[in-house]
Amino acid sequence: MSSLANGEDEESLVDPLLLSNHHDFSLRRRNTTSQLALVGANVCPIQSLDYEIIENAFFKEDWRSRGKIQIFQYIFMKWVLCLLIGLVVSLVGFFINLGVENVAGTKFVITSNMMLEKRYWTAFFVFTASDFGLTLFASLFTALVSPAAAGSGIPEVKAYLNGVDLPNIFTPRTLIGKILGIISAVSSSLLIGKAGPMVHISSSIATLLGQGGSEKYHLTWKWLDVFKNDRDRRDLVTCGAAAGIAAAFRAPVGGVLWRGALLWRAFFSTAVVAIMLRGFMDFCYSGKCGLFGTGGLIMFNVTSENFVYHLDDVPPVLLLGVIGGILGALFNFILKKVLRIYNLIHGKGIVYQIFLACSVSIFTSCLLFGLPWLASCQACPSGASEDCPTIGRSGNYKKFQCAPGHYNDLASLIFNTNDDAIRNLFSHSTDSEFHGSSMLIFFVTCFFLSIFSYGIVAPSGLFVPVIVTGASYGRYVGMLIGSSTSLNNGLFAVLGAASLLGGSMRVTVSVCVMLLELTNNLLLLPLVMVVLLVSKTVADGLNANVYDMLMMLKGFPYLESHAEPYMRQLTVADVATRPLLCFQGIEKVRNIVDMLRNSRHNGFPVIDEPPHSESPVLFGLILRAHLIVLLKKKVFFRTPVGLDVFDQFSSVDFAKGASGIRDKIEDIELTDEEMEMYIDLHPFSNASPYTVVETMSLAKALILFRQIGLRHMLVIPNTPDRPPAVGILTRHDFMPEHIYGLYPSLANRARWKRPRFRLPFLSESAFRQTPPCTEIGQRKKQPKTSTPGTAITTTFEEYEK
Amino acid sequence: MSSLANGEDEESLVDPLLLSNHHDFSLRRRNTTSQLALVGANVCPIQSLDYEIIENAFFKEDWRSRGKIQIFQYIFMKWVLCLLIGLVVSLVGFFINLGVENVAGTKFVITSNMMLEKRYWTAFFVFTASDFGLTLFASLFTALVSPAAAGSGIPEVKAYLNGVDLPNIFTPRTLIGKILGIISAVSSSLLIGKAGPMVHISSSIATLLGQGGSEKYHLTWKWLDVFKNDRDRRDLVTCGAAAGIAAAFRAPVGGVLWRGALLWRAFFSTAVVAIMLRGFMDFCYSGKCGLFGTGGLIMFNVTSENFVYHLDDVPPVLLLGVIGGILGALFNFILKKVLRIYNLIHGKGIVYQIFLACSVSIFTSCLLFGLPWLASCQACPSGASEDCPTIGRSGNYKKFQCAPGHYNDLASLIFNTNDDAIRNLFSHSTDSEFHGSSMLIFFVTCFFLSIFSYGIVAPSGLFVPVIVTGASYGRYVGMLIGSSTSLNNGLFAVLGAASLLGGSMRVTVSVCVMLLELTNNLLLLPLVMVVLLVSKTVADGLNANVYDMLMMLKGFPYLESHAEPYMRQLTVADVATRPLLCFQGIEKVRNIVDMLRNSRHNGFPVIDEPPHSESPVLFGLILRAHLIVLLKKKVFFRTPVGLDVFDQFSSVDFAKGASGIRDKIEDIELTDEEMEMYIDLHPFSNASPYTVVETMSLAKALILFRQIGLRHMLVIPNTPDRPPAVGILTRHDFMPEHIYGLYPSLANRARWKRPRFRLPFLSESAFRQTPPCTEIGQRKKQPKTSTPGTAITTTFEEYEK
Repeated sequence: MSSLANGEDEESLVDPLLLSNHHDFSLRRRNTTSQLALVGANVCPIQSLDYEIIENAFFKEDWRSRGKIQIFQYIFMKWVLCLLIGLVVSLVGFFINLGVENVAGTKFVITSNMMLEKRYWTAFFVFTASDFGLTLFASLFTALVSPAAAGSGIPEVKAYLNGVDLPNIFTPRTLIGKILGIISAVSSSLLIGKAGPMVHISSSIATLLGQGGSEKYHLTWKWLDVFKNDRDRRDLVTCGAAAGIAAAFRAPVGGVLWRGALLWRAFFSTAVVAIMLRGFMDFCYSGKCGLFGTGGLIMFNVTSENFVYHLDDVPPVLLLGVIGGILGALFNFILKKVLRIYNLIHGKGIVYQIFLACSVSIFTSCLLFGLPWLASCQACPSGASEDCPTIGRSGNYKKFQCAPGHYNDLASLIFNTNDDAIRNLFSHSTDSEFHGSSMLIFFVTCFFLSIFSYGIVAPSGLFVPVIVTGASYGRYVGMLIGSSTSLNNGLFAVLGAASLLGGSMRVTVSVCVMLLELTNNLLLLPLVMVVLLVSKTVADGLNANVYDMLMMLKGFPYLESHAEPYMRQLTVADVATRPLLCFQGIEKVRNIVDMLRNSRHNGFPVIDEPPHSESPVLFGLILRAHLIVLLKKKVFFRTPVGLDVFDQFSSVDFAKGASGIRDKIEDIELTDEEMEMYIDLHPFSNASPYTVVETMSLAKALILFRQIGLRHMLVIPNTPDRPPAVGILTRHDFMPEHIYGLYPSLANRARWKRPRFRLPFLSESAFRQTPPCTEIGQRKKQPKTSTPGTAITTTFEEYEK
Repeated sequence: MSSLANGEDEESLVDPLLLSNHHDFSLRRRNTTSQLALVGANVCPIQSLDYEIIENAFFKEDWRSRGKIQIFQYIFMKWVLCLLIGLVVSLVGFFINLGVENVAGTKFVITSNMMLEKRYWTAFFVFTASDFGLTLFASLFTALVSPAAAGSGIPEVKAYLNGVDLPNIFTPRTLIGKILGIISAVSSSLLIGKAGPMVHISSSIATLLGQGGSEKYHLTWKWLDVFKNDRDRRDLVTCGAAAGIAAAFRAPVGGVLWRGALLWRAFFSTAVVAIMLRGFMDFCYSGKCGLFGTGGLIMFNVTSENFVYHLDDVPPVLLLGVIGGILGALFNFILKKVLRIYNLIHGKGIVYQIFLACSVSIFTSCLLFGLPWLASCQACPSGASEDCPTIGRSGNYKKFQCAPGHYNDLASLIFNTNDDAIRNLFSHSTDSEFHGSSMLIFFVTCFFLSIFSYGIVAPSGLFVPVIVTGASYGRYVGMLIGSSTSLNNGLFAVLGAASLLGGSMRVTVSVCVMLLELTNNLLLLPLVMVVLLVSKTVADGLNANVYDMLMMLKGFPYLESHAEPYMRQLTVADVATRPLLCFQGIEKVRNIVDMLRNSRHNGFPVIDEPPHSESPVLFGLILRAHLIVLLKKKVFFRTPVGLDVFDQFSSVDFAKGASGIRDKIEDIELTDEEMEMYIDLHPFSNASPYTVVETMSLAKALILFRQIGLRHMLVIPNTPDRPPAVGILTRHDFMPEHIYGLYPSLANRARWKRPRFRLPFLSESAFRQTPPCTEIGQRKKQPKTSTPGTAITTTFEEYEK
């Protein structure tokens, strides 16, 4: 075993996680902050994914041994999986919509009928009780069975695609929890959406399909073994996420664009979803789906005849964008504060979590039922295209408490499912239907209910709440502007929704396409683009987008695609992990076991040293997971020689299981005799690791790391007479918190920061207070028990609860 | 000057381009095929672009010295430029449409009036003569004034964005030639499109705006100096290309997606274009634009009321996709053969070029005028929504030679502008309007006219011809299937257009969005997606997409984003450029001048050697362009020391001009005394070049090179006691032709090739026969006269003519 120590200074602020008195390590400089996720000042052992192609001799040989048929089989299975993803996702999406429409619909029909009979208190009681029951079920199920199912799921999927390995997010348990939870939570009239959970559900489905059955019961399909690696799994998740968006919004292209990477197979999956949904709608059109009708699959057709806008409609639209941007940033800001408070409450135990969810439910029910009483009844318009008031079904004119021939405009919005509310808001030629005061009340109610509903312990999406809020805001602005514009209020609602989406989520192009697909009005496109650009620009000047904020709160080490200016002032040597732990090409078993037990590193350089080579030569990089496979198989030699061992392994041995099920070094038992034997690491080392010279600027190294999607990057010296590898870079070495920790002065050099207009009350210092992960101190006290797997689970669930 | 020789074998098949007897070089292994573009077996000195951020001390210091205001100014200017691009592109696009509609419209009105008076021969003569005159003008102008304006321009823009520096493509002369040429060529009834040229025009506008005036007359705007580098220019070209697509198709989002990279500023530019076009349409609506009407801006509204499709419509759509894919591949195949014949004709001189263009024009005119006589006249339908026959304007029912109350269906398609033909084909509720035989004649005519019209010496796009051909094919299939489907013939035309676009161009997602934006029918989306996927898959099995084919014919070293399997079997050391020419950190002027004069390399490693360092250390990489700036400024020292020279340079000195205007080493005159002095290269060397270890597999190196968009990548040794850099990789080292040249056995190892179903008559061997670039032999005979600039121009124009 080689030990390399190449630091100059002796800084050791905290004890290292590896035991420093361990045989021949000579740790001169310790960088305790790397290779274990560092968020704030906390060590959070979230791992990274291996997207890199491991080019080792074994895999090359294995690939070479495959016939054309096996290669064809692999390509064929890729497409079949995408077809299956499309089919299953559309089925599940349809099932969820069917569930929500029927449960919520029945509730509203029963309540409305009681209202018709003027049994107002009974109606209120039934409404509140059913909401309460549904929320209780959703939160109990989430808290007790599948804590990872709470929340939107989009931050998790986004982090996964970024290369962060989060355990339990794609398990069957989470999937079931999310499906049942979202049906009951959305049916309970909470202001939450089903789009985010739908994306999470679809990604889970994709992963599980790729898994090809349960590993526990040995029911796996051999053809799918080749998909058991992070790279293929990422592609599946991409297809799944795209299919999820397609199913949630019937927006196939928007789904494909969501990740930025254009994957043909994702395109295929979304096309399958779109066609299947069309089939389901045909089926439901004949009335076989209960209260489902055809509207359950969100689609707001705002096509109006001869819609024309002029250049003088642009200024009000710009104004809408500016205010929308400010509102979006404010939304994110308040949401963050509320989530921090919820986090404190959730930390006290499951009872508190359930209590919080139920409180929000009762509060919501009271508001929904109570507020419409504030609005005055209005006479039905003569010659309306639909019945007024609408009874027993969705529509623009809710009767609520009004006399016959009258309707309650606020109830039409608030005492309704979110989908119907959006449909009412987006509807055209209804400019005189809603009062300004009703619209304002609705907007304020939605704004705060969205924020207070998101963080509860139940699946909950943000997309639909933001659309409802934005649409009511836009429609209100349209009412204020009145007749001086050629745009009707329905179009203002669409633009308002776009402005709040741009201000809160900032994912401009995909949101643009999604909104277009949702509203089926392409002529609106340029205005939507302008609104999104303006609101995104304004909001970006104020704070981070909502998903980044959520990921930061959850402590995911998300790697941005751009380098910050201060990174140009640093070289990779300034931040790289030290000391570097290396293996020799032919290594003693004892050394491997010791190193794996005493470090948490996941990649180790393999260096050939004399006498096996003339001088120390970098051979490659070996993964912890592969080392453990080698140790388990016990293909050891008594003497330090390299022999052909290919026939003793199959590629299945190296397959990586999903969802954090990893073999641990602690589970491997070796005799003393075996410990003294040798392993030839050459055939299993990635002989083409990506490397950077130590003088490379950190900014450029980050671009390399992020663009190629690496987990480990080796740092090599630029002078001779030194070891062939002098450090290793991982995701965590690029985290701003890590760099600021090493060089506190950088954090203060505002010169190199992006110019961001910061209001004093919007400070971001709050981030570093609540630790989502275990503290360094805690981890040190129990270095044996907190193995990576369990440690992550605990810390992760801590937040989710 | 250091000399590094690190090959083992002595292969020197051809004489090297650098003189081997030059002082202390010791060239042991010569790789003559790199650093100069290698296409087929020809040396083609097309250069690459520098997208990499040059992180040298000078630029860092320069950036540091800028105040916040200058940084803000830079960001502000970026957005202002995008606004300007949007405004100018929409103006130019409008002008082109206005020109085409009025010129072509006048021609058709005059001819139709003569037809009404039954002066058929006069009409034919006027029609043919005006077409001939317009084509003559377009081809003369292109051949004599701006040869780079010929063709579509999309391959050039695509190659530019890929990092290939093609001279003259973005000059004012090319811009004017393209604008005037496309107006006259499209007006002359040739079956060519204006979308491709529009993209080229818009990219030129973007580059010229970034240039900020003419350098020749010293009319440059200082604020724009920071944009004079390849990186910012690429972003401008991206915005320009997106704006061009938006202007051509009124498809803003499709434009943004075109390149794959999502750039907010491109989004902004396209939004500006969309809004401006809306303004122009408002203006024209009042009849101020002559024959322009509002239809000139292509937009085919195929929204039909209550459009519904069912699952059983999917099989015919799949069939459409399969046949479309085969047709698309056949289109590409025939186009390639025709272009090769045209190339031979064009090589004989300008007269032949003009003659060819005029022949195609006369042939086209005869077909357009003659074919409708084959079709029988049909009685006008009773109760049609528009006048029948339509006289003096565009419409579905052309009278042509028919009696009153009758129309000629083939004339409606063929004796019309392409835009009107597409509108007729896409129109719904006109299923009985066209005869099957007319449609078949039209399809066959379009298919071959598209192919024969593309290669003439005039600006010509492929997009609209492919849409027309595909739409007629789709409509014909729709007619054959008849009433067993719920889709009308207009929708079949849209799907047919999609299938041929997918089969020929294969750019699926952007085409999908463009078609949607063109047809304003989102419900059709899933079917369009399926058709595109099927046709792309089928066609990919047969041959390469049309743009790749064009780029290959033109000899552009386009770098694919994926690695071929055989690349995993090679290491970078196997293909890297050798011998490596290096500079010392402080280098003698004479050595620099000699090396620049005797090599064509554009990047040189800078190595610190004793006594300036303890051992040879890689400092960085310096560009030829920067060396020439240093030599021109003559900041030399009498002794080999490094002194601070920052104040003698400004960043403007290092600005890179557009369109191949580069200072040449031959133009710099130095005295003997100056030749003996020294330059300190350290402050001007990129201290963070991207590097790979020599054992890195070529596949992974390619991914790194392509993903980050590099021009030079240094190869470093993996053993000590060797020079710190042992090779350099450029774009040309990754070209399959180069690798096959070095390792001919690879070309035969079909095992590692993608399984491609190849028909014997579709062989690709034709590629390597006609040299688009000068031969190695030629180049060797005149090493002094063929400087990079002129050499490229010649070879490039050779093809274009």
